[in-house]
This record gives sequence, C-alpha cells and structure tokens, in this order.
Amino acid sequence: MSQGKDLLFKISSPEDLRKLNPSDLIRVSEELRQFIIDEVSNNPGHFGASLGVVELTIALHYVFDTPRDKIIWDVGHQAYGHKILTGRRDVFSTNRKYRGISGFPRMSESEYDAFGTGHSSTSISAALGMAVASRQKGEKRHVVAVIGDGAMTAGEAFEGLNNAGIAKSDLLVILNDNNIAIDQNVGALKEYLLDIATSGFYNKIKDKVWNLLGRAGRFGPNARTLAAQLEAGFKSTLLDRSNLFEGMNFRYFGPIDGHDVMHLVKVLEDLKRIRGPKLLHCLTVKGKGFRQAERHQTEFHAPGRFDKQTGAILSSDHEDSAPPYQEVFGHTILELARMNEKIVGVTPAMPTGCSLCIMMKEMPGRAFDVGIAEQHAVTFSAGLATQGLIPFCNIYSSFIQRAYDQVIHDVALQNLRVVFCIDRGGLVGSDGATHHGFFDLAFMRTIPNMIVAAPMNATELRNMMYTAQSDRVSSPFSIRYPRGSGMVREWRRGFSEIPVGRARLIREGSDIAVLSIGHPGNDVDKAARKLEAESVSVCHWDMRFAAPLDEEALHSVFGRFKKIITVEDGILKGGFGSAVIEFMSDNNYSAEIRRLGIPGYFVEHGTQEELYRECGYDAVGIENTIRKMLK
Amino acid sequence: MSQGKDLLFKISSPEDLRKLNPSDLIRVSEELRQFIIDEVSNNPGHFGASLGVVELTIALHYVFDTPRDKIIWDVGHQAYGHKILTGRRDVFSTNRKYRGISGFPRMSESEYDAFGTGHSSTSISAALGMAVASRQKGEKRHVVAVIGDGAMTAGEAFEGLNNAGIAKSDLLVILNDNNIAIDQNVGALKEYLLDIATSGFYNKIKDKVWNLLGRAGRFGPNARTLAAQLEAGFKSTLLDRSNLFEGMNFRYFGPIDGHDVMHLVKVLEDLKRIRGPKLLHCLTVKGKGFRQAERHQTEFHAPGRFDKQTGAILSSDHEDSAPPYQEVFGHTILELARMNEKIVGVTPAMPTGCSLCIMMKEMPGRAFDVGIAEQHAVTFSAGLATQGLIPFCNIYSSFIQRAYDQVIHDVALQNLRVVFCIDRGGLVGSDGATHHGFFDLAFMRTIPNMIVAAPMNATELRNMMYTAQSDRVSSPFSIRYPRGSGMVREWRRGFSEIPVGRARLIREGSDIAVLSIGHPGNDVDKAARKLEAESVSVCHWDMRFAAPLDEEALHSVFGRFKKIITVEDGILKGGFGSAVIEFMSDNNYSAEIRRLGIPGYFVEHGTQEELYRECGYDAVGIENTIRKMLK
Repeated sequence: MSQGKDLLFKISSPEDLRKLNPSDLIRVSEELRQFIIDEVSNNPGHFGASLGVVELTIALHYVFDTPRDKIIWDVGHQAYGHKILTGRRDVFSTNRKYRGISGFPRMSESEYDAFGTGHSSTSISAALGMAVASRQKGEKRHVVAVIGDGAMTAGEAFEGLNNAGIAKSDLLVILNDNNIAIDQNVGALKEYLLDIATSGFYNKIKDKVWNLLGRAGRFGPNARTLAAQLEAGFKSTLLDRSNLFEGMNFRYFGPIDGHDVMHLVKVLEDLKRIRGPKLLHCLTVKGKGFRQAERHQTEFHAPGRFDKQTGAILSSDHEDSAPPYQEVFGHTILELARMNEKIVGVTPAMPTGCSLCIMMKEMPGRAFDVGIAEQHAVTFSAGLATQGLIPFCNIYSSFIQRAYDQVIHDVALQNLRVVFCIDRGGLVGSDGATHHGFFDLAFMRTIPNMIVAAPMNATELRNMMYTAQSDRVSSPFSIRYPRGSGMVREWRRGFSEIPVGRARLIREGSDIAVLSIGHPGNDVDKAARKLEAESVSVCHWDMRFAAPLDEEALHSVFGRFKKIITVEDGILKGGFGSAVIEFMSDNNYSAEIRRLGIPGYFVEHGTQEELYRECGYDAVGIENTIRKMLK
Repeated sequence: MSQGKDLLFKISSPEDLRKLNPSDLIRVSEELRQFIIDEVSNNPGHFGASLGVVELTIALHYVFDTPRDKIIWDVGHQAYGHKILTGRRDVFSTNRKYRGISGFPRMSESEYDAFGTGHSSTSISAALGMAVASRQKGEKRHVVAVIGDGAMTAGEAFEGLNNAGIAKSDLLVILNDNNIAIDQNVGALKEYLLDIATSGFYNKIKDKVWNLLGRAGRFGPNARTLAAQLEAGFKSTLLDRSNLFEGMNFRYFGPIDGHDVMHLVKVLEDLKRIRGPKLLHCLTVKGKGFRQAERHQTEFHAPGRFDKQTGAILSSDHEDSAPPYQEVFGHTILELARMNEKIVGVTPAMPTGCSLCIMMKEMPGRAFDVGIAEQHAVTFSAGLATQGLIPFCNIYSSFIQRAYDQVIHDVALQNLRVVFCIDRGGLVGSDGATHHGFFDLAFMRTIPNMIVAAPMNATELRNMMYTAQSDRVSSPFSIRYPRGSGMVREWRRGFSEIPVGRARLIREGSDIAVLSIGHPGNDVDKAARKLEAESVSVCHWDMRFAAPLDEEALHSVFGRFKKIITVEDGILKGGFGSAVIEFMSDNNYSAEIRRLGIPGYFVEHGTQEELYRECGYDAVGIENTIRKMLK
C-alpha cells in the first residue's frame, strides 16, 4: 500500500475532492485508509468501522454537494474518514483528546457534521426530519443516512423506516452491512441480510424471474398463458412486497460492493435522480485493508494502540494491575450462575464490552445477547423474572436511557426481580458527552421499589452481585460502576452479603464528614489520608446505596457534623447528594453541605482523570473542598 | 342481540369455559359482548378495543390452558373480556375506580394476568422472556402475545420480533389487525398489512401461484420447463422471504377473520402443534357489534358514559366549563403556527388525545402523526430543528419516558430548539399507575440546557407556548400540564411573553411561603383563601419554571421565611421540591421545608381528586400541612 499521501493532503474540503477525476478516487481511498491506520495505531480510537467505509465516505462526498446536502452517520464512530476529508485532517491527532476534536460527529464542530451521533439508530429519524424540513422550506437538498446492520436492529431504526415509508420525502438510507456490530450481530434481520447477500444475489434472481416470464413466449402459447396468469398474481402482491424494505415502502437497491469506489459513485449518481424513500444495501468489510482488523473484528473495533506493521495490539500502561470492574463482573456472574441455577445473563450487544462473553462461553443457554435493543433487553428480562429466574441485565449507563420506560413500567412497577448491572456509570473518558453515564444515579433513585447501589471497588461489586441474588432480596436491584480499574488485585475471594441500604464507615473523623457513593470513594480516601498527615480529621462513609439510604448512618452524621460533603460520579441535580439533602430537610437537620459531582452541563471528552479534575471531584478537588470548608 | 347471560354467568374461570361445546362459544361471545356494553356504557372505560377481541379472548382461553399457558395482552386496554372470563365478572363494576380493579392487566390482581401492560409494544419481548424461562426450567407451556397493528409500529415490537426470530422458542404472536390505533394508524407497516388483508388474501395468492406451477404440465412440456425454472429461482429466495414477518423468521399464518370464534378455535388448536416462532394475523373490527363504535372508532376508543341503546355519548358533568388544557394546546398551536411559519407539530399517535388534530386539519403539511413511536418522534423533531424549524412535539408524560434518551442525546446535548409539550403530567386518574406522569419534572430538570416549565392554568400555557417560539429563546423548552380543566373560561386572549425562569407572586403573605409549580397552584390558592379568612397569611409563588429556577424569588423567600412548603404534581424524590432545597443548601439558607407531591410508591387509579387527596396535595391536604407547620 502506498505510503504517500499526495492527493489526500491536497483535500482541505469536499470541494477539493470533487475536482478530482473519478479514477483518482482509488488512490484517495488508499491514502485515506493509510492515514487512518497511521493515526489510530498511535492515538487510540475506533478503527474497524472507519476502515470499512473509506470508499463509501469518499463516494458520498464526491457525489453529494456537502454541506448543503446532508450526510448523517449513524452511531458516528465510523466517521473518521469523513472528518479527515472535511477540514479536520490536520487536527486529527487531537481526536478524542481533552479539548481536541470529538470521536463522533458533532454539529458544533463542523458544518459537515449534519447531526451529532454516538448512540445508535437515530439517523433515519433525523434524516427524515431534515428532508421534511427542506420540503417545507422549499429547499432542494439530498439527505443521506448511513446506518450499519447492527444499528438496524434497534427499534428506533424501524420506527424511522416505518414513518419514512409513507412520507413522500427524498431520503436515501445506506445500509452499511458488514454483518457485525461490535460483537457478532444477532437477530433475524442479520440472517435475512445474509440471505440476500449470499444467495446468488437477490436482485439478480428477481430479474431472472421477470426475464423468464417475459421470454415465456419461447415456451409456446400455453406457457405464455401460464406466465400471464402468474404475472397477474405476482404483481399485485408477491414481487412488490417481496423484500422486507420494500414491504416498508422503500425502494431497495443492491446489494453492491461497498469497496468499489468508482461503482459506488456511479450508483449514487443514479440514485440522486430517483425520488422518494430508497435504501442502498452496501456490503463492506469491517477493518477493510488492515489484515489483522479484518480477521479480528471485535478486537479491532477500538483496539487501543497497535503496531501498524505487525498489527500487534500494544498493552496499555496501567499504573496498577487491578483488573477493571468489567472483568470482575464477567467472572463473578459466571461464579454466581454456577451456584444459583436461577441466574441468567442478558446484554444488548455488548458481550465483550461488559464481559458477559465469559458466561456466554461456558453457559450459552443461560446468557443472551439480544442485539442493539435495550428496550427489548429490559422487557425480556422482566419476562424471564416473571417465571422465577433472576436475570442480570447488563447495560451501559448512557444506553439504559433507551430503556428508561421499560425499567419503570415493566420491572419496577411490577416489582420484578431484575438485577441491572449498569456499566460505564459516570464519566467514561474519551468517548465523551454521548457516552458519559451522567444520569443513572439521579433517575434510578427516583423509581419506586428500585434498590440503587454502587460499589467502591471490585470486592464490593462482587458482594453487591451476591446480595442481589440472595433469597432475602425481592426487589429490582441496580448496581452501577464505572469504566476502569476495580482497585483490588486479589478480588477472587468468597462472597459476603451486604444488608440492603447499609453504609460502610471507611474512616472515623471529627472535623468534617464526607459521604461518597461508588468509585469516587477511592479519591475521598486518598484526600483524607493526605489531610490526616496535616491533622485534619475526616470522617468518611461509603454510602453504597443511593436508595434506600442508610438513615441510621445519616442520623449519626447529621447529629455530629455541621460540615458535610457528598461525592458522586453523576449529575448533581437530583442525584445522590440531593438525596442526602432531602433527608436533611425532611428530618429538620441543618448543615453546610457541598455536593461534588457532575455540574449542569454536558462534560466533553478527555481522560477520566482530566474530566474528574474539571468537575472537581478528583482527589485534589475533594481535598481542596475540604480545606475550603474548614477555613 | 340476546340480553340473557345464562352461559356467561356460569363461567367463573376459564376452566368453566373449557367445559362448553365449541358451538356454545358463539352464544358466549354474544353474552360477553353485551356484558361489556352494559358495563362500559355506565362505568366509563376503554370500549372499542375490548369489543374487537371478544371472540379472540374466548378462543384463547378455550384452547390454551390458562393460567399455566400465558397470554400477554399488549397495551392491555382490550383485556376487559379477559378479566370478565377470569373471575372478575362480579367486581367488574369497580373497573378503574379507586380501590377497584385496574383497567389494565396487572400481575398483582390475578394469576391470569401474565404480565402487566399499559404502554404499548412490550408483549413480544415479555412473552419471549417467559418462553425462554420455561425452556430453561424444563416446563412445557404455550406463550401467546396479542398485539395490535398500532402497537406493532413501535420499535420495541420490532426488537422483540427480531430477537424472537432467532430464539428457538415456542411463541405465538397474534397480530390483532383492526387497522387503527386510537386514531388512524399510520406508517408503511399499516399499508403493508392492508395490502395483505385486501388484495384477495395474500395466502390464497401464494397458494394459487404454487398450484399454477404444480399444474404447469397442463400447459404442455415447455410450460413445465418454465415452471421448473421458476420454482427453482423462487424457492431459494422469493417465496421463503416474501412476507415481512417471514423475513423475520416467523412462520406467518392468516389473515383470518377474528370474529369467527369457531374457526379461531380450530386454527389455534392447529397452531398449538407447530413449534417455533409463529404469527397469526387476525382481522378484527374495533368496536365490533356496537354499530356506533364501529362507525366512530376514535370517539368510542374510550367514550365516557353513553346510551347503550342509541349510542349517544353522554356529556360528562364538569363542575366548571373551562376547557381542558388539551383543547387550549390544540387551538393555541394553530394560532401560533399561523403567525410563525417555522412552527410545525409532531405527535406519536395521539392527535385526538392531545388535540394536535386541530392543526392537522388546517395545516396537514405542517403537523405530523408519526405513529406509536416516541423515540422517532423526538429524533425526527430534532432533525426538523436542525433546519431552523420549531417543532412542538406533544407527548404524554408517561410515554415520553420511551424517548428519554432521545430527549437527552438528540435534543438537549445539541441544544436544539424543540418544544416539548408534555401532556398528562402528574396523576391522570382512572388509567392508573402505568399512565400517571410521575417522573417528568424530576428527570427533565436534570438535563442540561433544558428549560422546564409548567403552567398553572390555560392562560399560562398559552403564554409559555408563545414564549417557547419567541426569538429570545434558543434552548429546548418543555411545558408540562395535566389532564383536565385549564381553569380559565375566557382563555382566548392575546399572548404575553414570560421571561424564562421568572416566577410569579400570586399572593403576598407573612406567616409561611408556599412555592408551587404548575396546576397544583390552584389548590394552593384555594387553601390560602380559606386560611386568610382565619387570618393566616400565606405567601404564594407560582414558580412556573423548575429549570432554570427563579433565584431572585428564592433569595427573597429564603431571606424572609423560615417555614416553606413546595407543591408539585410529580414524584418527590429529585423533583421540583428537591430543586428548591438544593438551592437552599447551595446558598446556605436554612428553613423548615415540607415537600408535597407524589410519595415514593406507584400510586394507583381513581379520580384525580381522590388521588391528590391520597397524596396530600389537594387543597385540604395543603391547608392541613400549613396548619401543622404553623402550630
């Protein structure tokens, strides 16, 4: 592959790209692909998805008049090529870094980013809105949604298709079918797409059938009679509706090779002239052009740093070797499932990310990847629970927002015993604003019947999981923990049950009380140790539960302290700290309280440490707050 | 129609039903239908949907071994027949009444209610959970989900189908296709189903085609060659996947007449023996058997009291004639849209319920019913807003829970100017726990960038809507109001803009301050008037905004008062009252505060007045709280 990037470096905007000859696009593809490999091998980010759409990205910007025409990248982690072609090549080295460009499209970053994405399956709905608005305003423009086969399994994509199918808007949906989400894609739709893609090409067969009917004369007049009868029957129903997307009123085209850039240009040019809702089915290979990424698609979804020659993934230089909460979850659920046959596991498309894959491997019949479908994951879990099973439903904090209604309506209202393991609670780091788990503590604690717990370390996570499946618990139970280290190297110990709603006194003290929930307790501990050396005496409670609160502990704290700090890795409004001041107010205590947590704006990307610092609840921020309050 | 109910009154459980001869079921259908007409004409509730499934209900309980076999009624408002046949005939007169039986299936009410419903489109996911659990436990049982064509347009139904299509579980989905939701059903799927249902019956054509191919010999040997070639081509792709549901790996049966009870019994008996996921398409008529309900399906969805002879809907005896907030919204958005061409309206399937139908009638190109698809409704609105339009997206409070993620991720994070009109905020009355708008104030106020407003009456609603579209506003704006009277008879006045975040002093006073948000301010006013006669001096602020708070007003209140009450029609944890004590704590005020609102459990059904009283924030409750605090 060429290492030169002569053409790519002449492209400062799609305008420049459109000046090239179609035949140049092959070289642009090579150069863009190599640029992505060079950059992402060194500055980690999403990888396989962007490699898979290099040709598609170039063809779209070549054919369509961006930014006037709108391209919406579903999920958005595949938009690196798009960013590089639209004026962000020279700042691409800041991708996902603090104060750098975002790893996802953002309207505030570029006029070429028509719609911000991050969560999946929004693109068709947003594109339809743009198309309808343009019609309303009398402006002519093309609107294109690019959506993967994984994202197509989520309900919102279907809702968008269903509505777009009757709106008379010009809308092109490009189905980027690489037959994988982050993990293997699942579901009937996947099989359907595979069928279309592999069985000698659907459309050719369709054509062949029509040709046969057309040439029926050759078979003699009787055959012609048969053909006429068949045609009449077919036309009215079967062939018109013989494709799932045509059933939704979309004109279906494809499948075509998504790596043949010149053919893509030709097809897109043709489609520009066809009105109404249409879907182009492109077959692509995730990680295309980088051998190891094509072979190991899940590992190379977001591989961290890697050697661009050998493809070896370079281990990250963790300062401590305590394994992440994710790994502890994965091994612990398997351990519990071996002991308790009622336990089953559920994940919406994140078996590797959340480590449920460990249980899936040993107990395939008891651990379910239901696809990108959080709503279904929760109601399905509720269904399992009605029959006496104990589902552990693992969903990332920002994605469980998709199932907020189902958590309330299907689980909590019926008081069904579903255990929610809410991964990526709090600030997640470089994925940024769309992926931070800002809200879960605040919204879960308001839901009646729901137990809301957060462990301070891997040992507590294990004990909370153990508690959640114990016979003494009969309510829905949520356990939220962050991305990252569980702080305990020797976590593979036995289990001990935690009384629901019972806090844990970490450190006795007399000058000030700090009440933390979950992982930030470790930073409180660090701050308290440091201050202890200066004879500042900090009382530290690991509250463990945001609901129910440990009222005994709180009575003791409010009885003894006039200065109190609460710390949480979540939004301040309505969060854990609010629960503490609700208690204070309801019980007629008064104290000076500082609540530390995520302030009232959408925090962006950076390392977790940088973001904790920005929000003021890293160890230094906690220490400073304590000093300030004691001054 | 027979007025006798000899057979029906012998049925105390499905056991009794199953003792009858199949031929008796026609009479049971007649009697059950008449029972529903008698009851609902007198004690209002949902009507058309239950009439439409009388035969289906009887056939299901006749064929399946309930409660061992599981029937899940999607949405659940069609389950009156089911309730009557499963031991609740004699208490059916308490339907939807305070302390009476619920208008929806509830697991806590009967072992025959396999899963609680209320919100749409959960049944397939829940049924799959039950089927998988039964397999896991080695128990044989049939699981049936009954879902309407309206509910089928929501994303979760698709997610459930997609996942069920690959699970090897025995699952029967009955598509109850009456071609209507509450209003006309919309979307491509509806057209698809109509096509199947009307074009000479899909399956007959399919059969006819096969027959023709089979009889091709008659047309001579050449025709036979043609037929063989066609068959080879078809079998591999077209016919196997020629139906949308078969594309999802479901075996498709139907469509059949959903009012032929004996045929239904026969078909269901057959389907019992077929393994794997299967879908039975039943054609039914909403309101079947009551002429006016068949003709006026939207009006008779939940008609209130009516004359069972003439079908005349009896007007309800409102104590005042001020029109409901809903009507004010409907006329006001049209008025604003006439003035501001950027305004468009969006509703997910509730044009009559929320009154957007008024605008849809005059401006069909600018007001959109997108079907039961809250997620899509919100992202579609975001898409419209990117192009400079101002969408007013009207969603019921308990249903916007379905779009919580989209409100955050697509609207607030991008600071797009979507106006959310959140109807049915707070306690809604007889629809009960699934439909109460418990949470919106609490969760909307935690979302950065979001303006959260609630009007105390129709005039304020109008002014807030006016404000939301003014040039001075550039943020997402939510306006929540309850079901019911807007308190102002002469509401058709001009508009005046409300400064965002500015409260309104309703009454000066000196003994205690009451801070209310939204409609409950009227009860505060009532209580304050009463107490004034006894020389108790109440200061009353209509806060109007839960975010941003009027800090000036709050400084004034906390500076002057040591006793404060907050009142809201929403969950107390994390709600408006919490915002007030957050302010108090952050600003180092201290005061005795009582927060009135919805306590920490799922309040059930009854009239709104009964429920406000139960929660202690009707006028009497407010008055009592004031007295208690001043004692």
